[in-house]
Amino acid sequence: MKILVTSGGTSEAIDSVRAITNHSTGRLGKIITETLLAAGHEVCLITTKRSLKPESHPNLSIREITNTHELLLEMQERVKDYQVLIHSMAVSDYTPVYMTGLEEVQASSNLEEFLSKQNHQTKISSTDEVQVLFLKKTPKIISLVKEWNPAIHLIGFKLLVDVNEDHLVDIARKSLIKNQADLIIANDLTQISANQHRAIFVEKDHLQTVHTKEEIAELLLEKIQSYHS
Amino acid sequence: MKILVTSGGTSEAIDSVRAITNHSTGRLGKIITETLLAAGHEVCLITTKRSLKPESHPNLSIREITNTHELLLEMQERVKDYQVLIHSMAVSDYTPVYMTGLEEVQASSNLEEFLSKQNHQTKISSTDEVQVLFLKKTPKIISLVKEWNPAIHLIGFKLLVDVNEDHLVDIARKSLIKNQADLIIANDLTQISANQHRAIFVEKDHLQTVHTKEEIAELLLEKIQSYHS
Repeated sequence: MKILVTSGGTSEAIDSVRAITNHSTGRLGKIITETLLAAGHEVCLITTKRSLKPESHPNLSIREITNTHELLLEMQERVKDYQVLIHSMAVSDYTPVYMTGLEEVQASSNLEEFLSKQNHQTKISSTDEVQVLFLKKTPKIISLVKEWNPAIHLIGFKLLVDVNEDHLVDIARKSLIKNQADLIIANDLTQISANQHRAIFVEKDHLQTVHTKEEIAELLLEKIQSYHS
Repeated sequence: MKILVTSGGTSEAIDSVRAITNHSTGRLGKIITETLLAAGHEVCLITTKRSLKPESHPNLSIREITNTHELLLEMQERVKDYQVLIHSMAVSDYTPVYMTGLEEVQASSNLEEFLSKQNHQTKISSTDEVQVLFLKKTPKIISLVKEWNPAIHLIGFKLLVDVNEDHLVDIARKSLIKNQADLIIANDLTQISANQHRAIFVEKDHLQTVHTKEEIAELLLEKIQSYHS
């Protein structure tokens, strides 16, 4: 099958030097991609410059993006051509709008004015003791996938931190329904380390738990093969 | 000689998932370290988990840090034991204090209250349309080096973005005097790419310009050998 995989973490520029990013390394997406390729599938991997990447392979194409906006454009163009999307990229929820010293913010009578401002310096000055950064929500790309391709099998991820398992599954199930996904893989950062990666596969009617990145990739492959038949 | 090199870029956590970081890859620090090792020097490299690193070498030790606070503690302990410091790490100027929705900030009569708040969620909720992040200045580590070891030869870096060369040199010279450095290497982000890295070596009495990372490392080695005699 033709499978689109997203992997790594987006990075949102504050200025030409600083950025907001996240801890995603791309390791899971690399293992998933390698597992799919080994099983004979054709993969397009959308990832970032600094993420871990699979070795090159005749059935693999790699596209690099930096931020959420670029990811959206790339996916909008590609989602329609694929049968399955595995959306494991950690996408920034917020993107910087404007950063300024505390004094300028204190002097304002309407903080919303800062949402239409832009930093004109290429590197924001570091003279103020305190800076204030305004951020706005990014578009929820996963919610747009079925608009771009109603027939695609959508597999999403939900990462929470230090929550109980019922809550994690509950949130994953809400994402499953809202985004019309086939499967949401729920995980908790406190249960991810170099050698373990506990994850719960949340589908409409059942749950399955695995414990390593390799097991995630193997079970994902099994799920995808079943879509075929 | 015993040389301490810092390399890569610090990363300041917003919460357990998000962080503010910068574009530094550690490539220059890697080349500098390799050049020093090849010339027979003993190097301790302080860098980050995700930075590029030299191959292991009997005269090389590597210490990993994440943020400015950890860097400060590590350097405070080590600077006294070295004869030269090459401080090429891109150190965050600001570190996050508190992040909250715009409404909470609008409702406040004194914004300074947020500087003593802390986020108690491990992953900040993403329900608000607009978030506001308060950041405070980090300590200027380079200014503390000579207090820790008055005899050390201090080599610093100054990165600006898209400025004219006179201004760049002027700012580098101010840093040279203020931090009692032997040398400040001034560079402009717009003149750094995969194959070029224009840099101006700013010393008390003269300037020298080089054009690649390898040339930076070679000229640095020459400068350091001269401290010896």
